[in-house]
Amino acid sequence: MARNTQVPADHNAPAITRILAEYVAKHPSRGWNDAVDHEAHRTFLNWLGCAVGAAKHEAADAAIAAVNELQPAPQATIAGRSERVDMASAALVNGITSHTFDFDDTHLKTIIHPAGPVASALLALAEHKGMGGREVVDALVLGIDVACRLGNLVYPEHYDRGWHITGTTGMLGAAAGCARLLKLDAQQTQMALGIAASQPIGLREQFGTMTKPFHPGGAARAGLMSALLAAKGFTASPRALEAPRGWAQVVSTKTAWNEATDELGERFEISFNSYKPFACGIVIHPSIDACVQLRERGVRPEQVERIELKVHSLVLELTGKKEPADGLQGKFSVYHGCAAGLTFGRAGEDEYHDDIVTRPDMVALRRKVVATVDNSIDEASADVTAVLTNGERVHIFVEHAIGSLQKPMTDAMLEGKFSSLAEPVLGAAKTKQLIAACWGLGQASDLRALAALARP
Amino acid sequence: MARNTQVPADHNAPAITRILAEYVAKHPSRGWNDAVDHEAHRTFLNWLGCAVGAAKHEAADAAIAAVNELQPAPQATIAGRSERVDMASAALVNGITSHTFDFDDTHLKTIIHPAGPVASALLALAEHKGMGGREVVDALVLGIDVACRLGNLVYPEHYDRGWHITGTTGMLGAAAGCARLLKLDAQQTQMALGIAASQPIGLREQFGTMTKPFHPGGAARAGLMSALLAAKGFTASPRALEAPRGWAQVVSTKTAWNEATDELGERFEISFNSYKPFACGIVIHPSIDACVQLRERGVRPEQVERIELKVHSLVLELTGKKEPADGLQGKFSVYHGCAAGLTFGRAGEDEYHDDIVTRPDMVALRRKVVATVDNSIDEASADVTAVLTNGERVHIFVEHAIGSLQKPMTDAMLEGKFSSLAEPVLGAAKTKQLIAACWGLGQASDLRALAALARP
Repeated sequence: MARNTQVPADHNAPAITRILAEYVAKHPSRGWNDAVDHEAHRTFLNWLGCAVGAAKHEAADAAIAAVNELQPAPQATIAGRSERVDMASAALVNGITSHTFDFDDTHLKTIIHPAGPVASALLALAEHKGMGGREVVDALVLGIDVACRLGNLVYPEHYDRGWHITGTTGMLGAAAGCARLLKLDAQQTQMALGIAASQPIGLREQFGTMTKPFHPGGAARAGLMSALLAAKGFTASPRALEAPRGWAQVVSTKTAWNEATDELGERFEISFNSYKPFACGIVIHPSIDACVQLRERGVRPEQVERIELKVHSLVLELTGKKEPADGLQGKFSVYHGCAAGLTFGRAGEDEYHDDIVTRPDMVALRRKVVATVDNSIDEASADVTAVLTNGERVHIFVEHAIGSLQKPMTDAMLEGKFSSLAEPVLGAAKTKQLIAACWGLGQASDLRALAALARP
Repeated sequence: MARNTQVPADHNAPAITRILAEYVAKHPSRGWNDAVDHEAHRTFLNWLGCAVGAAKHEAADAAIAAVNELQPAPQATIAGRSERVDMASAALVNGITSHTFDFDDTHLKTIIHPAGPVASALLALAEHKGMGGREVVDALVLGIDVACRLGNLVYPEHYDRGWHITGTTGMLGAAAGCARLLKLDAQQTQMALGIAASQPIGLREQFGTMTKPFHPGGAARAGLMSALLAAKGFTASPRALEAPRGWAQVVSTKTAWNEATDELGERFEISFNSYKPFACGIVIHPSIDACVQLRERGVRPEQVERIELKVHSLVLELTGKKEPADGLQGKFSVYHGCAAGLTFGRAGEDEYHDDIVTRPDMVALRRKVVATVDNSIDEASADVTAVLTNGERVHIFVEHAIGSLQKPMTDAMLEGKFSSLAEPVLGAAKTKQLIAACWGLGQASDLRALAALARP
């Protein structure tokens, strides 16, 4: 998936993050001369005077009115936890958790994960305000439409530059959705988008750390606060997205303006949203899907002599780890993915636990997988043959994996995925009720009932 | 101050901010087919399952522990207001108010306003925790050093691209300062810088709106939260600043790494901080300074036949408004600046109120100012001659204006500026006490006493 990019990368930069961290943590107290120390006092005095002087300005009034909306906490649910917190913090945490397993939805045209920023902001706001589900569904469709259209506008140049596009468009989707939920008029909504435009959150360098899921969380929080600020009269540039020094031109050299407006209100980007059936990179999905189908055809691990896997070269480049040592490494192993699919008929988060990845039967089975590169096979496809100990050969060709736009997960599959995630946290009974509440979202009279079901 | 930049500007972009705002505000509820509406329910269900499933992950624990630090509110003072709010919101609002009048400090090498993000975060955290002043001064010096060094690393390319550098380096300064205040070790401090690196806040397109001062406020908030998250074990890339897809290389094509580390711990960027004596753009300051000096030499407005002003062409380009209609326009009028300097001996926020700018004697006096371009005079200088009704000529040449690094404001001048800002809000007695508390910051045993003085 590497692409050419116009930005020259410097791979030999000194470790300034570490150097500055050491300095901040270890430089002695007052480790400078009196002039520097006095300048610090002058800086503080001058700063405080400016802050006090503007304390009655209308910008202060608007900002304080917005942050006062967060009081008194608790206001909103953290899904899967008993704690409730202020709604901005709930938006942040739910945005983090929903992306923590990299198992959330994907707008395939831009690889934005749109629900993390948008739904996290909406649920927190709607729960606190006791809003109805119809309004939430409307805001979700429109918020995701804004985020993904703006993503189309800058993708792929923006992503290639190094931005984690989920958090750098997500604050705009969350702002749009929350503006809708708050029934802001077009002028206030324009201000909400403008305030959000100043707050893109996310660098691809963070992949592999907790700050990756922080990006949709931070975007949810920023979008919600932008809408609250706009509702209180806070102002922003009316051309914050498109102006020469506005969002699009600052974060991207590609600006396909038509993507924002073509078929607006007729084509909805949520239609191109997809859901992962397997808790790993999408490039492994066709191979796992094939092995799940082998299992459905009656093939059992103990019958298997060898699994012949033919895939595009990219699959082995990205996920060719033959002997993964733990769950995280397992996610980069097409061999483990095949073993899990054949053994369990699925590859959810549970099948990537350390103790599953290191289980002797799994280790043995994945060693029986013989992968061959065949670039006549598309990245989205996989050709798998199980050679059994009795000599029989069972062949499966997957053109499009389950979860792709061409072969979406069924509602029943989504329920199964939900249950596998939620039951360990909420128990079977509550999980079942919560699924029903989600399907009934559009008819819900008050989101507080649904939110309550998401607490253990 | 225009510079060449490699980014081609598109001045003819369609008004997508407005178009999307209209769409979000006005598209009818359920204005799409059933498939779209069902996809919204699938998106919501899938998102909620992912959030519930990761609810017990260590990332969730760390994030919840950090946001719980904001409870129970109120915790911290909004300077100049009686309200107290949670410390993150206090950091946000104080960052906004301290930059609202554009009257705060300036690191002239980068035009970063460093105290807004850094001091706003520190005061909120220190007040809530009852910390001592010595720690705050240390954190202020180090936090500003980090923000401004990183500014030096990317300036001017980063600013020219369209970023408002105060908020795109400020979150790093605030994170560094708060990490220091929380006594985080080098490893945790590195994580705090890493988390903050994903959150640059600020577009120059917002200049002239409330979102401009939102930038230092948002940066203060983001930096404080980054330090709290790091303290609870939240992780980020250890090379978040310098990696190819890290902060510097994503937001700038200039990356002068040595700026981060040259003379680290020996040269402190706070030494290059400056304070504005006049509440307007710095390019007018030499002219105002000259008129204040004329007043000190005994020249009175009623004696004046004509004021001959010779300045660099930039002064009239940027601030050549001859007949400002209100206070905001007055800030872009060197003519009003001269009239205020001669009449009041100062040009603080009060002298830019609408009723001062439109007062007949001010209108009459500024019409007596005759400005001439003379590019032999530096941008930082002004040549002013008062021609009196008796034929006398009084000449002042200002090479460097008061407030410049060459001719800094004295401590007494800073006190005068502080009083002019704070007395209308806090009254004279409390203002005097607060000034004393600021000078004594390094000896303060508990920041709560100083914070209490900042409340009316």
